[in-house]
Amino acid sequence: MPLVLGAAVEQAQVLLALFIMIAAAKVMAEIFERMKQPAVVGEILAGVIIGPSVLGWVQPSEIIGIVAEIGVIFLLFMVGLETKPQSILRVGKKAFLVGTLGVILPFIAGYLIAMAWDGSFVEAMFIGAALVATSVGITARVLGGLGLLDKRTSKIILGAAVIDDILGLIILSIVSAVSTGKVNYVELGKTALLAIGFTALVATIGSHAMKRLAPRVAVLKLDKPFFNTGLILCLGLSVASMYVGVAAIIGAFLAGMALAEPTEENHGMHKLTSGVTEFLVPFFLVNIGMQLNLAVFKEWEVVALAVVITFFACITKFIGCGLGAWGLSRREMAQVGVGMIPRGEVGIVVAQIGLGLAVITDKFFAAVLFMAVATTLIAPPLIKHFFAEDTNKDGISDPFEEHDVSEEFTRIG
Amino acid sequence: MPLVLGAAVEQAQVLLALFIMIAAAKVMAEIFERMKQPAVVGEILAGVIIGPSVLGWVQPSEIIGIVAEIGVIFLLFMVGLETKPQSILRVGKKAFLVGTLGVILPFIAGYLIAMAWDGSFVEAMFIGAALVATSVGITARVLGGLGLLDKRTSKIILGAAVIDDILGLIILSIVSAVSTGKVNYVELGKTALLAIGFTALVATIGSHAMKRLAPRVAVLKLDKPFFNTGLILCLGLSVASMYVGVAAIIGAFLAGMALAEPTEENHGMHKLTSGVTEFLVPFFLVNIGMQLNLAVFKEWEVVALAVVITFFACITKFIGCGLGAWGLSRREMAQVGVGMIPRGEVGIVVAQIGLGLAVITDKFFAAVLFMAVATTLIAPPLIKHFFAEDTNKDGISDPFEEHDVSEEFTRIG
Repeated sequence: MPLVLGAAVEQAQVLLALFIMIAAAKVMAEIFERMKQPAVVGEILAGVIIGPSVLGWVQPSEIIGIVAEIGVIFLLFMVGLETKPQSILRVGKKAFLVGTLGVILPFIAGYLIAMAWDGSFVEAMFIGAALVATSVGITARVLGGLGLLDKRTSKIILGAAVIDDILGLIILSIVSAVSTGKVNYVELGKTALLAIGFTALVATIGSHAMKRLAPRVAVLKLDKPFFNTGLILCLGLSVASMYVGVAAIIGAFLAGMALAEPTEENHGMHKLTSGVTEFLVPFFLVNIGMQLNLAVFKEWEVVALAVVITFFACITKFIGCGLGAWGLSRREMAQVGVGMIPRGEVGIVVAQIGLGLAVITDKFFAAVLFMAVATTLIAPPLIKHFFAEDTNKDGISDPFEEHDVSEEFTRIG
Repeated sequence: MPLVLGAAVEQAQVLLALFIMIAAAKVMAEIFERMKQPAVVGEILAGVIIGPSVLGWVQPSEIIGIVAEIGVIFLLFMVGLETKPQSILRVGKKAFLVGTLGVILPFIAGYLIAMAWDGSFVEAMFIGAALVATSVGITARVLGGLGLLDKRTSKIILGAAVIDDILGLIILSIVSAVSTGKVNYVELGKTALLAIGFTALVATIGSHAMKRLAPRVAVLKLDKPFFNTGLILCLGLSVASMYVGVAAIIGAFLAGMALAEPTEENHGMHKLTSGVTEFLVPFFLVNIGMQLNLAVFKEWEVVALAVVITFFACITKFIGCGLGAWGLSRREMAQVGVGMIPRGEVGIVVAQIGLGLAVITDKFFAAVLFMAVATTLIAPPLIKHFFAEDTNKDGISDPFEEHDVSEEFTRIG
C-alpha cells in the first residue's frame, strides 16, 4: 500500500523493530558460532544490546511479546516432533523426581533470601515462585543444536520440564491466592487437577489419535497436509494449555510429540517447521535480552541482591535436579542439573505478576529479571561443557551449527 | 508460563484468534480444493465467516494486521525468489503500459461514479485513488499455485504491479495533499523520485550484489545461511520500502528477486521459505475477509453503490490492463487483464486514510470495502479460467494444489 500514513506508521515501526531484532540476532549468532560459543547466548546478548540497556533501538512491546511467544511455541513443537512419547514415559519416574526436587529447593532458597533481605512474607513467597520454573526452550535449543535430543538425559530434562511447569502453576496459584488473601482450596484443587488431567490426557491419547489419522494423509505422500495438520494442532493445544493454566509451550510440545511417530519419515515436515523456527525463534531469544534494563543496577544493594539470587537459582536447580537423577552416572546427573538452570521468560512473567499485584518491590523485581536473563546466559556454555563428549561427529568441530535432519537429506538427495 | 493472568490473558486471546483464523483458513482451503475451486477464495471466505459479518469470533486488530502484513511480505518474497530480474526487464515496456493504463481508467471511473453519486470533489478523488492499486499478492498466490509464475503474462503482471504501486503512491500523495488543501509540488516531486529511484536502484543493483556475495555462502552448501540472509534482506527491504513510501511487499518482492539467481539450485531455501508462507499467508487472506462487515448493507443505496463500484473496478482494470498488453494474443491480453483485478488490502487502506482525513462518508467507505473484498473473490476463478489451458500436467486435475519446487524434489530424493 502506498504512503506511510495512519495505521501504516505503526506497522512500519513494528516491522522496523522486527527487522532490527532479527538482523542483530543472526549477526550475533554467527559471531558466537565462529568463536565456538553457543549461538543462543549471542542472540540473547543481541537483545541486551539493542534493548533499553544499551542502544535503546527497540523497546519490548505487546506485539513483540506475541511474536516471541509464537517463536518459542514453534521451538517446542519442533522439539516435540523429535520426541517419541514412549521415550518420555520410559524416564517418567526419574523425570518426576527431577522436576519435583528442582522445584522445592529453588523455592526454599528464594523464600529464605527474600526473608533475609527484609522482604515481606508474600514477597518472599513470590521470589520463591519466580525461582521455580525452568525455561526449557533454551535448553531444547542448545540440545537440538548439538543433535542430542535423543539422549536419555535430554528426555529426562524434557519430561521434568513438564512436571516443573505444572508444579510451578500450582505454586503460583497458591502464592497469588495468599497475596490477595483469598485462599480457596477447592479452586486450587480444580486448577491443579485440570492442569494435570489435560497434560496426561493429551500426552497419552494424542499420539494414538494421530497414529490412526496419519495413514490417511500419508497415502498422499505430501508434506503440506501433514504440516497444516501440525500447525492447527500446535496452535490449538498451545491455546488450550493457556486456558487450562499451564504454559503454551507445554501444549506445543505435546502437539509435536503426538506427531513424532506419524511424521518420523517425513523430512518435509521437519524442513517446513524449521523454516518457521529459523524465522521466529530469534524474536523469543532477543526479547529475553531486551527485558533487561541495566539502568536499575546503579545501587549496589540491587547488584548484590541480583548476584545472590542468581547464584542460588543456579546452584539449587543444579543440586535439586541432579539429585533427582540419582542412580545415573555423576556426569549424567550434572547434565540434567545444568539443563534445568535457565529461567528465561518464565521467571520474568512470575515477577511481573507480583509487580502487578503490588506485592514485589522494584529492587526484587530488578534482581529477578537479572536472574532470569543471567541463568539463561550461563546455562548454554555449561550444557555445552557437560555434554561435550557426547556430541556426534558433526558436533565436535562446530557443535552449535544447527542440527537439521533434512539438511543431510537434501545433501544426499 | 503458568496461570493466565495479567498480560498473559491478552496473549491467550491473541493466540486464540490466530488459532481460529488458521484452522478456519486451512479447512476452507481444503473444502474449496476438493470442489476444484481456488483455495484463496476459501481462505478469504473463512475470514468473512469468522469475522464481524457472520460469527464475530475474531475482530480485526492491530496485532492481527501486523501478522497478516508479515504474511503477504513473505508471499511476495517467495514469488520474487521464482522471478529472475531479466525476465521482468524483458517485458518492461509492456508492464509499464499495463500498469499505467490500469491506473488511469479505474481512477477516472471511480471519480465519475462518486461525482455522479453526489460525492464532493475530494471524496471523488479518494474513491478514484482507492480503485487504483492492485493487490498483486492474490494473483501471485493463484499463479504460484498453478505453477505459472514462469509465463510471460505472469511477468507482465508482476512488473505492472510494481509500476501500479508507484503510480498509486503518487496519486494518493496528490489526493491527500488536495484534501488538506496543502499541495506542495516540491514535496510531491521528492516523494515520486524517491519511490522510483529506490525501486530502480534495488531492482538493478540488488541481483548483481547478491550474485557476488552468494558464491561465498554457496561453498558451504548449507540452506540456513542462505535462508538467514534472505530473512534479513526481505524484512530490511520491506521496511525500507515503507519508509520510502511504496508498499512493503514491493521491497519483499525485490529482495526475493535479488536472490532468485543465486538460490536457483537451492531447494532448501524454497522449502524453508514455504514453511513460513504456509503458516503466515492464511492470516493475510483471512484478514482481508474479516475487514468486511455485511451489517452496513442494510440500506439499498449502499448495496447499489457497492455493486456499481465493484463492477467498474473490475471492468476498467480488465480493459485498461488488457489494452496495455496490446500486441499479445487476445487470450494473453485477457490473462493480464484479470490478473490485475484484485484490490485486496490496498483499496481498504486508501479508503481508511480517506476516513481518517474525514473526507469520505460512511456509505462510500462501505462500498469501497465491499469492492476490495469482492474483486479479490471474483478474480481467482477468472484467472483460473483464462489460464486454464496453460496449466502444467499437475495443474489440470487439481490446479490449486500448492505448487512447490522442493515438493517434487523431495519425492525424487
